[in-house]
Amino acid sequence: MLRKLVVVGVGLIGGSFALALKAAGAVDHVVGVGRRETTLERARALGIIDAIGALEASTLSDADLVLVSVPVAQTEKVLAALAPHLRATTLVTDAGSTKHDVVAAARAALGTGIRQFVPGHPIAGTEHSGPEAAFAELFRGRNVVLTPLEENSAQDVARVRRAWENCGARVREIGVTEHDRILAAVSHLPHLLAYALVDHVTGRPGGERFISFAAGGFRDFTRIASSHSEMWRDICMANRIGLIEELDGYTVILQELRAILERGDALALQAVFERAREARNHWLEQSGT
Amino acid sequence: MLRKLVVVGVGLIGGSFALALKAAGAVDHVVGVGRRETTLERARALGIIDAIGALEASTLSDADLVLVSVPVAQTEKVLAALAPHLRATTLVTDAGSTKHDVVAAARAALGTGIRQFVPGHPIAGTEHSGPEAAFAELFRGRNVVLTPLEENSAQDVARVRRAWENCGARVREIGVTEHDRILAAVSHLPHLLAYALVDHVTGRPGGERFISFAAGGFRDFTRIASSHSEMWRDICMANRIGLIEELDGYTVILQELRAILERGDALALQAVFERAREARNHWLEQSGT
Repeated sequence: MLRKLVVVGVGLIGGSFALALKAAGAVDHVVGVGRRETTLERARALGIIDAIGALEASTLSDADLVLVSVPVAQTEKVLAALAPHLRATTLVTDAGSTKHDVVAAARAALGTGIRQFVPGHPIAGTEHSGPEAAFAELFRGRNVVLTPLEENSAQDVARVRRAWENCGARVREIGVTEHDRILAAVSHLPHLLAYALVDHVTGRPGGERFISFAAGGFRDFTRIASSHSEMWRDICMANRIGLIEELDGYTVILQELRAILERGDALALQAVFERAREARNHWLEQSGT
Repeated sequence: MLRKLVVVGVGLIGGSFALALKAAGAVDHVVGVGRRETTLERARALGIIDAIGALEASTLSDADLVLVSVPVAQTEKVLAALAPHLRATTLVTDAGSTKHDVVAAARAALGTGIRQFVPGHPIAGTEHSGPEAAFAELFRGRNVVLTPLEENSAQDVARVRRAWENCGARVREIGVTEHDRILAAVSHLPHLLAYALVDHVTGRPGGERFISFAAGGFRDFTRIASSHSEMWRDICMANRIGLIEELDGYTVILQELRAILERGDALALQAVFERAREARNHWLEQSGT
């Protein structure tokens, strides 16, 4: 049970974390901190947070857990601001979609306090943002990745794990490097591709007429292109080396498909389609998605 | 009101057309024709068709309308088989996702009977296939494109239009060439990209571990990669010149994004993301999707 949770960045992820812990009866008091007062007031009106705080002693000194859920490029600034007020009994975790940059930021900002920082990433979300988008069930059955540091105690990792498990999540521990490599492929690349497709279709002369013939396939393919652009800019920038590598690998496959189309090789094309179809259906079965 | 409708290929599209017309009270009797007897029997058990027929006089001679909804590469064979039994009072339409090849096939198969063939394309579907996937509401509010030929009479085009309107669809008439160019961009390319992404992620060593970290964004992006592989092979092959052109244009955008990532230009990246996001949200508002 957490007596006091501080959520820095009360949007889709931070807000849902607070709501899920409240629904589970796993937190007493939630304080929200953020860039915009109006957002925090909406979060309070929605019952997501109980009070509005700031990155100062009165908010932080008696906190059990601080969740930093801001665009990843802001992590260092946030952690540097809370560092002077961090008591030894407070744990800090984050919800950033990239971990290499977040860990580097945490080391720079927290110094020896790094042992109190357990990096995390809930692999869940929607294309909506802000406290209105938050809901208690967001993490139910979803993967939450923790990438514990050698400085973390097993006990502290277990406390952060328990908080996410109380949200209904499936917690998995992997290394920072593996996390960023995997997420580049299964999340960052698809976001880049979706934004690119919308731009490709609508950016041409007559693009509005083109898109007016689009249907459900296009809508779902590009759903993630309605995501928060600042957040995804930060993620793509933070993991750009890995993302470029994935983009290059994907481009190779597109060029193979282009060659197949060019030579009119229907059998080869169907073989790729069928292989992908089976792999996706197998994943759906395995994951219960 | 149609007295007798013949559906050749009673799958998702053909089955939904029959169900929608039945629900609208716009057809008396539906006869199904297809490659597999077991599929037709399932369609009859599901109440989609009233009887099982064949491409012969007894099925076709008193038909008001024939819908050909088979993978596009089979269009010519189907039309050639029904041509000898085609009475002057019977209209034929299709549901193919490409129109240039379908019209060429129809001209070859039907000769002067081409005036009775009104090409159509319901831009609706799901990733599921077969009669079990059919449902009466599939076309409600969706675009159905007709690409009338100069040989068609205005009256015949209006009859096919009315049938689709009875399914709740929004019918739009455009030219064959424009249809194939637009659909290459908003439908055929996204399907190719989705199949390619699944193959890219799962085709590597450890691919199964990679995909186990995928979430809702990946699921929706790749939904269409669970589509019928033979149907999409045929579509991509039939429209391969246009598809290659779209793929090349898309690849240019990916290379621009790669350059932006390479030089770490966060502002440029966000500008693309935000432009795409706004364009997509604008489309969602306009289309009521």
